[in-house]
Amino acid sequence: MLKILVTNDDGVKAKGIGALTELMRPYGQVTVVAPFEAQSGMSAALTIGKPLRLTELKSEENLKIYACSGTPADCVKMAMNQIFSEQAPDLLVSGINHGSNASIASLYSGTLGAAAEGTVYGIPSIGFSLCSHNPNADFSGAIHYAKIIIDNFLKNPVSPNTFLNVNFPSIPKEDILGIKFSHQGKGQWIKEFEERRDPYGFNYYWMTGEFFNQEPEDTLADHNLINKNYVSIVPHKIDTTDYLEIGRLENLWSIK
Amino acid sequence: MLKILVTNDDGVKAKGIGALTELMRPYGQVTVVAPFEAQSGMSAALTIGKPLRLTELKSEENLKIYACSGTPADCVKMAMNQIFSEQAPDLLVSGINHGSNASIASLYSGTLGAAAEGTVYGIPSIGFSLCSHNPNADFSGAIHYAKIIIDNFLKNPVSPNTFLNVNFPSIPKEDILGIKFSHQGKGQWIKEFEERRDPYGFNYYWMTGEFFNQEPEDTLADHNLINKNYVSIVPHKIDTTDYLEIGRLENLWSIK
Repeated sequence: MLKILVTNDDGVKAKGIGALTELMRPYGQVTVVAPFEAQSGMSAALTIGKPLRLTELKSEENLKIYACSGTPADCVKMAMNQIFSEQAPDLLVSGINHGSNASIASLYSGTLGAAAEGTVYGIPSIGFSLCSHNPNADFSGAIHYAKIIIDNFLKNPVSPNTFLNVNFPSIPKEDILGIKFSHQGKGQWIKEFEERRDPYGFNYYWMTGEFFNQEPEDTLADHNLINKNYVSIVPHKIDTTDYLEIGRLENLWSIK
Repeated sequence: MLKILVTNDDGVKAKGIGALTELMRPYGQVTVVAPFEAQSGMSAALTIGKPLRLTELKSEENLKIYACSGTPADCVKMAMNQIFSEQAPDLLVSGINHGSNASIASLYSGTLGAAAEGTVYGIPSIGFSLCSHNPNADFSGAIHYAKIIIDNFLKNPVSPNTFLNVNFPSIPKEDILGIKFSHQGKGQWIKEFEERRDPYGFNYYWMTGEFFNQEPEDTLADHNLINKNYVSIVPHKIDTTDYLEIGRLENLWSIK
C-alpha cells in the first residue's frame, strides 16, 4: 500500500491541505505533518536554536494528522525522523498552496521548501499551488488536474534530485485549457514595503510588493502559461550549481 | 566610488560580518544591513504577516550600519527599497558565516538566501562562509583569500542570475592550499532531532543531526575540496529549472 506524506506551508487547518488530503486518500496510507500555523514565504528555512513540538491531531485507518510547530522543511524532517524512520514514504505532496508559487516565488515558497526537503530525502515530491490567496478559494479545478498529474507521476516519477512545482490558474475547471511543462519565469517583486509610524514615533514596515515581470510574453515560462489558462509544471533541481559558470570563471580568474 | 552592501545571517554583531566589513572598507562606500539577531538556517525566507523594523546603528564617512528585525533576505529587500532605492549597490557580500555552507547546507543557508536575493535584484553577489561555528573563530585565513576572490570578482564578475558560494576551511592561512571552483556536493543530514521531555510530560525536539556524505571522495565537490584544505567556490543559479527533465517527462506523460 502506497505511503503518502502530505504537508504544506499555510498550516494544517488550511482549506488547500484539506482538499489535497482528500484527493490522496484513495491512493493509500496518508500521513499529514503540517505546520500549526501559516508559514508562507519560509523557503527551505529550518528552526535552529529553539525546540520543536509535534502533536497528533487525528489517527484513523489510513489517515494520521500531525501538527508541527516549525517550518514546512522542519515538518518533513520531523516526519522522516519521528514517523517514517523505518521506511520512507513513496510520495510527498505539499500544498495545495493558497497563492502562486510560479516565477521567483519558487525561491521563497515554503510549499516548495518542503518539496525540496522531501527530494533531499530521496522521496519523489510535488508542490501544488492555486493562484489565489482566498482562504475559501475553489479547489475543484485544481483537484481535477492534480489527479491527472498524480496518476502520471506514479507511473513515471520525476528524476532523483528534482521535484515538481505545479501551479493551477484560479479559474473554473472548464476554462482550464490543459497542462504544460514549463520553466521558472523571470521576474521579481519591487516596491516591497509599506512604511508606517507607530504610536511612539518609530517607523515599521509591512512587506507588500508588486510583481515586476521580466519574462517576454511569448515564452513557455510558468507565469505566462498560467496567465493563458494552463496548469504549469516546472521541474526544479536541488543541485543549483551553475556548471557552465565554473569553466567560464576558471578561464578568467587568476587563482592558484 | 564602489557602493557595497554587506549582510549576513549570524546577526549584525557577529565577528564574521565585522571582519568582512573591515575587508570591504578600502573598496568603497560600505552599507551594512544585517539581522538584529542570529538567523541561521533561514534560507531565502521572508517575513510575511508581521512588520519589520530598521534601525541605524552607525553612520560615519563611507560606513553605515543598520540592523533589521527580519531574515537575511528581508535585509536585502529592506536595503534595496529603503536605502538603495535610487541606485543599486555594485556588489553584495554576505557573511562571513560562522559554519560551512557547502553541500546541501546551501539549501538552508541564510547567508546564501541573502546572496540569492541580491542576485534577484541584479546585484553581483557572493556569500562567504568559514567552516567553524566558533563565535571567536580566526578569520585571518578567510580574509586573505576573500580579498583575492573580491579582486578577481571585480574584474570578472559572476554572470547574471548566478551568485558565488565561497567556503573557507577553518585551518591556519599557511595550510590552505589554494582556491578551486567546484560544485554543490551531494549529502544530507540524518538523525536530526534530539527528543526531550518537558516538566509537564510532553516531548519536544532539538534539531541536531549528522552529515551523511553521499558524494564520492575523489570528485571536485565543495565539501571534498574543503576537506582537502582548499577554498571552494560554487556558482549557484537562481533559476533552478531542470531543463532536461522537461523534455523527458513530456515524452512519458499523458497530458493534453
